[in-house]
This record gives sequence, C-alpha cells and structure tokens, in this order.
Amino acid sequence: MHESPTIKTDVSRLWQTHEDMARIGATEKGGVNRQALTVEDAEARALFIDWATAAGCAIDTDAVGNIFARRVGRDPNLPAVATGSHLDTQPTGGKYDGAYGVLAGLEVVRALNDAGIETERPIDVIVWCNEEGTRFAHAGSSVFAGKTPLATAYDDVDPAGIRFEDALVEIGAKGGSRPGARAFDSVFETHIEQGPLLEAAGLPIGIVTGARGQTRFEVTVTGEEGHAGTMPMTMRRDALTAAARLTAQMEEIGLRYPPQGVCTVGALSVYPNSRNVIPGTVSFSIDLRHPTAEGIAAMTADIEVAMADERGRGRVDIDCAVLDSEAPVSFNPILVDVLRNSAARVGHPAMDIFSMAGHDAVYVSELQPTAMIFVPCAGGLSHNELEAATAEDLAKGADVLATAMLARANRPRDDQ
Amino acid sequence: MHESPTIKTDVSRLWQTHEDMARIGATEKGGVNRQALTVEDAEARALFIDWATAAGCAIDTDAVGNIFARRVGRDPNLPAVATGSHLDTQPTGGKYDGAYGVLAGLEVVRALNDAGIETERPIDVIVWCNEEGTRFAHAGSSVFAGKTPLATAYDDVDPAGIRFEDALVEIGAKGGSRPGARAFDSVFETHIEQGPLLEAAGLPIGIVTGARGQTRFEVTVTGEEGHAGTMPMTMRRDALTAAARLTAQMEEIGLRYPPQGVCTVGALSVYPNSRNVIPGTVSFSIDLRHPTAEGIAAMTADIEVAMADERGRGRVDIDCAVLDSEAPVSFNPILVDVLRNSAARVGHPAMDIFSMAGHDAVYVSELQPTAMIFVPCAGGLSHNELEAATAEDLAKGADVLATAMLARANRPRDDQ
Repeated sequence: MHESPTIKTDVSRLWQTHEDMARIGATEKGGVNRQALTVEDAEARALFIDWATAAGCAIDTDAVGNIFARRVGRDPNLPAVATGSHLDTQPTGGKYDGAYGVLAGLEVVRALNDAGIETERPIDVIVWCNEEGTRFAHAGSSVFAGKTPLATAYDDVDPAGIRFEDALVEIGAKGGSRPGARAFDSVFETHIEQGPLLEAAGLPIGIVTGARGQTRFEVTVTGEEGHAGTMPMTMRRDALTAAARLTAQMEEIGLRYPPQGVCTVGALSVYPNSRNVIPGTVSFSIDLRHPTAEGIAAMTADIEVAMADERGRGRVDIDCAVLDSEAPVSFNPILVDVLRNSAARVGHPAMDIFSMAGHDAVYVSELQPTAMIFVPCAGGLSHNELEAATAEDLAKGADVLATAMLARANRPRDDQ
Repeated sequence: MHESPTIKTDVSRLWQTHEDMARIGATEKGGVNRQALTVEDAEARALFIDWATAAGCAIDTDAVGNIFARRVGRDPNLPAVATGSHLDTQPTGGKYDGAYGVLAGLEVVRALNDAGIETERPIDVIVWCNEEGTRFAHAGSSVFAGKTPLATAYDDVDPAGIRFEDALVEIGAKGGSRPGARAFDSVFETHIEQGPLLEAAGLPIGIVTGARGQTRFEVTVTGEEGHAGTMPMTMRRDALTAAARLTAQMEEIGLRYPPQGVCTVGALSVYPNSRNVIPGTVSFSIDLRHPTAEGIAAMTADIEVAMADERGRGRVDIDCAVLDSEAPVSFNPILVDVLRNSAARVGHPAMDIFSMAGHDAVYVSELQPTAMIFVPCAGGLSHNELEAATAEDLAKGADVLATAMLARANRPRDDQ
C-alpha cells in the first residue's frame, strides 16, 4: 500500500494570484467582466502563460484555444494528471467562477516546486476556452470532448456577428494541436459550488460525485382572448390561469424530489398582455434537473400528469415540447475516492455533493476519467459581481487537489 | 293612466344604415378601423349629420366634439329625450360597437317621421366623441358629465404626439357649445352586449339595470434571483411561483361571486425572464369587477387574504397597490322600468342584465337620468373585426328604444 504525501498550498499566494487575475476586467461593483476572446480574456490568458512559464511549465494551445501548461514528469510517455477550468466570465461575473479552477492548478505546480517534488507523470494545468457560453455558444471543453465538432464551434457568432474562429485568430489564441488529441491519466476541476449547500453544512470541501441530468421544456398554453369584464368566469378559456396553475405545480414537483431535484419556470410570456383582456396564449419554460436518470424520468412523468390534469379541465390546449435533454454524469469512482481520501488525509472536512450546473469537467468526463472539488461561496451566489469565497476555503480546495494529483501522478503503473 | 303607442322600426333600413356606415374604415376581415378624430371618423360624423339633417334634425356640436341632432318637440323649452353612443372604433373593431347606439337613435327619428308622430319634448340623437380611448384617453361623454375637465381632454396626446384639441380642430369637429350645458329629460343608449349572456339565454333584449364597479390593482412580487440548478427548492425565493399561486387564486375569487363577479390577471411580466434563472421580480395586473359595492368590497377582501396567505409563506415580498377604482352605477329606476314596460308592450322577450364594461351612458348617468338596452352579439365577441349581430335583434332593440323614448317624450309634465 503506497501512501503519497499530503500537500499544503500557500493561502496568501493563492489569494493574491486571484486578486491579480481579478484586476483584468474588474468592474466597479467588485466583479469581473472578462468575456471569452475579448482583449480582457487575451490579457488573462497571457498572464496565466507568464505565471505558468515562470513556474517551469511548457505551453501548448489547441485549435479551439484550450491552453495546456505542462510540468514535466519523469516519464514523458505517461499521460498527464490534469486540472483546470476557465478564465472567461459572465458579463457581470465574479472573481472565482472558473478562475479558481485554473489558479488552484497553478498553485499545485507552485507548491510541488516549493516542496521539490518530482512526479512520475506530467502535471497539466488547463485553461478551457469559452466556458460561459455568453458570447459564443460552444465551450472549448465540449469540442475537446468530441461533443461539439470544431467546425461548429468555429462558425458560432457573437451578438455583434463576429465568428468564433476569427475572434480566436484576432487575439492569437488559435493553436496548432487537435482538440482531444491529448490523453490524460485523470482530469480534476476545482470550482466554487455556486450553490448554498457547503455553506449551510459548514464544510469547506465538496467531493462532487457527478452532475445533474437536465431536461428543458417549452410549454405553450392556448386559450381564447376575451373581455375581462363581460366574459363570465365559467365561460373563460384563460391561458394564464392555466399556465399559473402549472407553474405552481412545477414548484410542487421540484419539492417532491429533495434534496437535489429542482424544477424551475424561469421565463413566461403572456399574449396579448393587456390589463383588460383575458390572456389567449401563454408560453413558458421548464428547467428540470436531477442527479439520476430515474429522477429525471420520474419528474418528467409528474410534469406530464400535471399537463394532463390541466388539459382535463377542458379549458385550454397545452403543447409541452422537449427543447433539449442531457443525461446525468457520474464522475470516475476511483478519482472520487482519491479526492475523498485526499481530503481526509489533508484534514479538511468534506461531504459528497452533486453538481447541479454544467462545468468543463462535465463535458470532459465523456472522454477522460474526471472528478471535481467544490468549495463554498457566500450565500451560494455566482454569476454575480458579488460572488465571494474565503482565502482559507480556496486554499483548502487546492490542498485536496494537490494531494490527489500527487497521489495520481506518482501511483504505480499497474494501479488503477 | 296614459298608454303611449308602441313603435316598430324598419329592420331593413336599420341594417342597411349599419352597412353604409361600416364602409367607412372597413377592414379586409369585415371589421372597422375608425379611430377617433381620424379622416374616417370625420367621414362617419359627416354621414351621420347628412342623415340626421335629411330626417329633419338640427345639428349642434359642443366644444369636445359631441354631436347633438335634435328633432323638435311641440314645447322647445322642455328638456329633450336623448339617445346615442359613439362612432369611433378600436383599431380592429367591429360594425356594431358604438355605431348601433347612434344608428338606432337615427332609426327612432325616421320611424317617428314615418308614423307622422309629433312629440311634446324634443328628441336628441347624440354622437359622443372618442369613446374607445385607444387614441386619446378621455371620452367626450366623460367631459360632458363633468368627470373629466375639458382642458384635460384637450391636452391628451395620441401615440404620434398629436393633441386632442388640435385633432378636433383639424377635422372641423370642435363646436361652440359648452359640454354639459344641455339638460335632458332622459338619456338612453342601445349597445351590443359584448358578452355572451343574452345569446346563452336566447333573448333579444337586455334591460341594463346598472354598470359594474371596477377596481384595478398593480401587484409586484419581489423574491430573489438564483441559479435554476444549484439553488435547492427549499431555499428559493421564487417570485414567479408566488405570483402564479396568486394568479390562480384570482380565478378562484372570481368564481366565488357568480354570475357577474369577475377577476382577471391580464398582464404579467417576469424579471429577468431567463430559462435558467429563478425569477426575482414579477409584476401583474388584477382587474376586479362586480355589480355591487358590497361585491367589490368582498372580492377586495378576498384578494387581501390571498396576498396575506402568500406573504405568510415567508418567501417573497408583495406590494399590491390600487391603480384606480370606479363605484358601481345603478341606472335610473324609472327609466329602467320604462324600458321593461316598452319591451313587454312591443313584444320582445327581455331579461335584466348588468353592464360589465364602461359605456357613454355610464359616464352620463352621473349627470342625467340614464338607462341602457343590450342586444345579443355572436359569441359575446366584441373589440374584434368578427363582431356580429343580427338585423332582427338590432331592430328589436330599436323598437324598445323608440317605444320608450316616445313614452318619455309625450308623458304628462307632472309625471316622473
């Protein structure tokens, strides 16, 4: 039984690195606006490359703009132990969403350097290009994983009509290597939770065992417009009251699948939307998420029952169409165990948690063994300029990451 | 006991007069677009004046554009027995809303002429200016009744920025007499029901005993935006599910006050209205109508209970503000009885009915003794190009009107 050493990262250095990175695209409210392939994103990528190069890494960029910073291992022929996330942000984003996963990886390299530790396998720190999807639709990690063809990503256009490939060339981010060509022993990602569960539990580490399945529906309810005064209640075909009952039902359905089943009506539009006209048409979205395929199926069945009940009132027509559906992802159980053991050995209290949002690691898990670490963020707030995390929690996550990566990088060749 | 004769109007002539009037502003779908103070409205007003003049009437126009066509009585000092409605329409209006009330009045004059009947009191047929309120906010009948100051109406602007007074002058519709100066013995209005009750009852005549009270609310529900994936159901402050429960409750409240209490959420807006964001703010309208002040008060109390229940869940803040409130109107009971008796004497089956919409007569009732007659319209449809009524029903309403007006015009001076 091999026992790899634990690694403690540098709280102050990791914090300061975040502060330095957060100056690029800094907003007045303390957040970050660093959208993909803008000059700010280019500046952030260059800063990362400077830091990684200074830490002894060799840089490679693939054709979709993903950056791989490699700390060499004793055996250059072995697949690397990798970690990373993204540097692009939402227009009103925070300092930690994405950046933490990149900078924790950099901190692992720095900490290994400080400790004078060589590893058998290489260590790769990855900057996945364009994760947020606010400017261009398809993520670099999705292209890497083979879920999105490179040509599709190239032809994405931003709201100003600029092609993804042209923007990539413009900032000098289009590299030569083929996305997906690089094989990994394992891929880790650290990320702020973007939810309230770790904070509520008072725990610094979440061991992410998988990511939610998600099905999105678009519902159209068709009734009949009428005069809000002269049409008696019993003769109405009010599309909004039907949609309202369904919307309230969606919350009930979400509540039926605790703790992590969720069901959300986020968008709803009324026609003709006039004070004195009974609404004739209402359309609304349903976003359904659950950790398991069985949960998604059960919640979908509940939605169908709710639709059937409302149809049964005989007042309106309801069209409920699936927009898209993603199956739940289970992260690699061996890597999940490595993270659990690393947290225990480094002494940071942890709980298992499920990711209810998408991440680079969720895409990459289709191609490579993958797992994730969450750390708390204040109030669960993210995609928000007020996004906050503590220096201690960020470093604790980096400790678990470093300890796990070292264990993987130096494990015997015949050990799974 | 005096017994005034019954009058039968000319079905074909009244129908043809509607067809001729409906050519002005005719739409492809068979409706009418004849908005207030447009060239079409001016043409319709001119056609009415031609017809009324040809029928022996003298024309007067007041300063807000209301037209009074007078058939003289034997005693010019007695107040007139009046009837009228409006010639302007909604942008996608029908042939009968408003026009019927004017043209039935013209038919009364023509029928009295045919029968060679002189009356003691004058007969006035009125075209109230701008009833629909789609182009300019304030109705000519509201100015006449003293509810809206003339200066306020003059300063109304249409969506193109044109002042009401300027539009009035432009089409030559600004007369010299002071609105409200003319006293009436009684004011009648015939109108299509704009609702489904007469059709459902299979009766041609509705004796309108009054008009609904109406209170309009603007509700703002404030919760907290959150990630549709990572925020657990139990920790959400979802403004839309709260608004949805309230919207469904408003229907329940309407159903609690049959047959004519109604409660409608016609307009609802969601912020930020994004598929994957829990809504933080929702605003919506409530339009509450009931025939009695007691009903309005009880329904308002029910709304307050619903708001309190939702507040009691402790998830959202709710602001529920009254936008405006109109008290119910009871039409003059003596005139209502005159209409009931006239319908019975002329042999047209009638039922009492309540107006759940606003009409010129509702405004005028604040100043003068007033009552209304409804006739059926197909499917209750109105404010719609497909609005329809039958020639027979229109004439039956005109028969009741003519019979009632003759009774009032020739009644003894000491009879109320």
